[in-house]
Amino acid sequence: MKYDVIIVGAGPAGCSAALTARQRNLKTLVVYNAEGAMEKAHRVDNYPGMPNISGKEFIKITREQMLEAGAELRKGLVQKIVPMGGSFSCLVENDIYEASSIILACGTARVRTLQNEEELLGQGVSYCATCDGMFYRGKTVIVVGSGGESVEEANYLAEITKVKYCSEKKHDTSKLNENITLIDDKPRSIEKSDEGMKLICDKLEHVADGIFVIRPAIALTQLLPELEVKDGSVYVDKDMATNVNGVFAAGDMVGQPFQVAKATGEGNIAALSASKYIKQAENE
Amino acid sequence: MKYDVIIVGAGPAGCSAALTARQRNLKTLVVYNAEGAMEKAHRVDNYPGMPNISGKEFIKITREQMLEAGAELRKGLVQKIVPMGGSFSCLVENDIYEASSIILACGTARVRTLQNEEELLGQGVSYCATCDGMFYRGKTVIVVGSGGESVEEANYLAEITKVKYCSEKKHDTSKLNENITLIDDKPRSIEKSDEGMKLICDKLEHVADGIFVIRPAIALTQLLPELEVKDGSVYVDKDMATNVNGVFAAGDMVGQPFQVAKATGEGNIAALSASKYIKQAENE
Repeated sequence: MKYDVIIVGAGPAGCSAALTARQRNLKTLVVYNAEGAMEKAHRVDNYPGMPNISGKEFIKITREQMLEAGAELRKGLVQKIVPMGGSFSCLVENDIYEASSIILACGTARVRTLQNEEELLGQGVSYCATCDGMFYRGKTVIVVGSGGESVEEANYLAEITKVKYCSEKKHDTSKLNENITLIDDKPRSIEKSDEGMKLICDKLEHVADGIFVIRPAIALTQLLPELEVKDGSVYVDKDMATNVNGVFAAGDMVGQPFQVAKATGEGNIAALSASKYIKQAENE
Repeated sequence: MKYDVIIVGAGPAGCSAALTARQRNLKTLVVYNAEGAMEKAHRVDNYPGMPNISGKEFIKITREQMLEAGAELRKGLVQKIVPMGGSFSCLVENDIYEASSIILACGTARVRTLQNEEELLGQGVSYCATCDGMFYRGKTVIVVGSGGESVEEANYLAEITKVKYCSEKKHDTSKLNENITLIDDKPRSIEKSDEGMKLICDKLEHVADGIFVIRPAIALTQLLPELEVKDGSVYVDKDMATNVNGVFAAGDMVGQPFQVAKATGEGNIAALSASKYIKQAENE
């Protein structure tokens, strides 16, 4: 089953893109992972038509609206988007989805990776507990965590492996299972050695069979390495087209201002451009 | 009294710009004239957060929201914007308003003028019954009309002058006062002659002391001649800045797609850019 468009992200830009994609009758899948910036917004004062709305309410209303319009919604981390000559394969945890076009609406989440992390991905480093947890059954893993999602994933891994947990940035770790060991150290880089995978931190080196780095978002260099990024933002033209043919982007990830109306406007344009792109491709 | 920003137009782009301008604490005046495209929209399906809203409802809600936020709203035709070296004078019927910056959000209204119309403006041709009606007291005028507004203006003029009415495009003229003569002819150009002002139509030439051309919008060439227009749209950069320093534009008038979310997003960006422009100008 092939989608016309897969939208990565279900914040203001993603929801707006999905609504317009459905209005253009595109078969639409929206994939989202962690809570975005919008859900943390206490109150938005300047979104036309919805005075003093909270970010959470806005997201609730627009997601319902988008489902009502016929978009499909799936929670999961998009790990990789692979251009396949005219279409795209999209790896979401253990599933692969195919689409004619992609709209990226992942928010600002600028991901700083650990040194060597990307080079060692798939060789002892994993981004996905659901995908790779079983490979480490009965072994020891380190989870590098940065938020509530990481805690959940670590708890899942703790059912099948021995888990050590190292925070990449400050967050609430009180819900970690009791059998998880906390590493009180700041991670810097990863190395592969004869003893196993080494997480090199400020104070010590910590060794395990595997290292899971669980963040709310994947670095763009990993998600779609072909993508042109300028000053930390995805480069788009005025039709919200990126440098990769068939891939569009909208919202905070294409640059400032970080505003709801701007994001929804760009999502709208991106969906119309994707629709035009698909029609043109069909006629070629 | 000087405004920080005058916004021309109170459709989706104008209302959004006003909301954000107020959020940035700018002293904001919004001037609008006729009903815009949005008010004619039966139903909008893809505006995030407001499922299946009518254009009229949307405008009602966002105008209330904008007033609530502290923007001032005035109905009237903006006839002329004059850059005054660091600020702008804005002629609205018989009043002049001053502002540090301007946001144009006038909608698509592409105005096709009659031949010689602009050259003869102020020399027998007028755009404003309220402004110039009294000059023609007891005389004969022709109103070139194109909608409900023109009918109202013609009726006002008929109280003080003898009015002939010539439709520029098809519209309901049933509410014209009984003492107004209808000219059943299509206007093409205007000439000044010894007999008076001549409206040259497809079939005949019609003579009067003055000609009032009453349209929902002023041609951009008249409103702000310095403005760069490309393929019928106002040229803007990605910050919604036009080629005239201190003048920004948003919505349908800067080009397709003609969509509510796109317009509100651009209005938002334009207001933030105007705010930045004002702060920079203050520091210079």
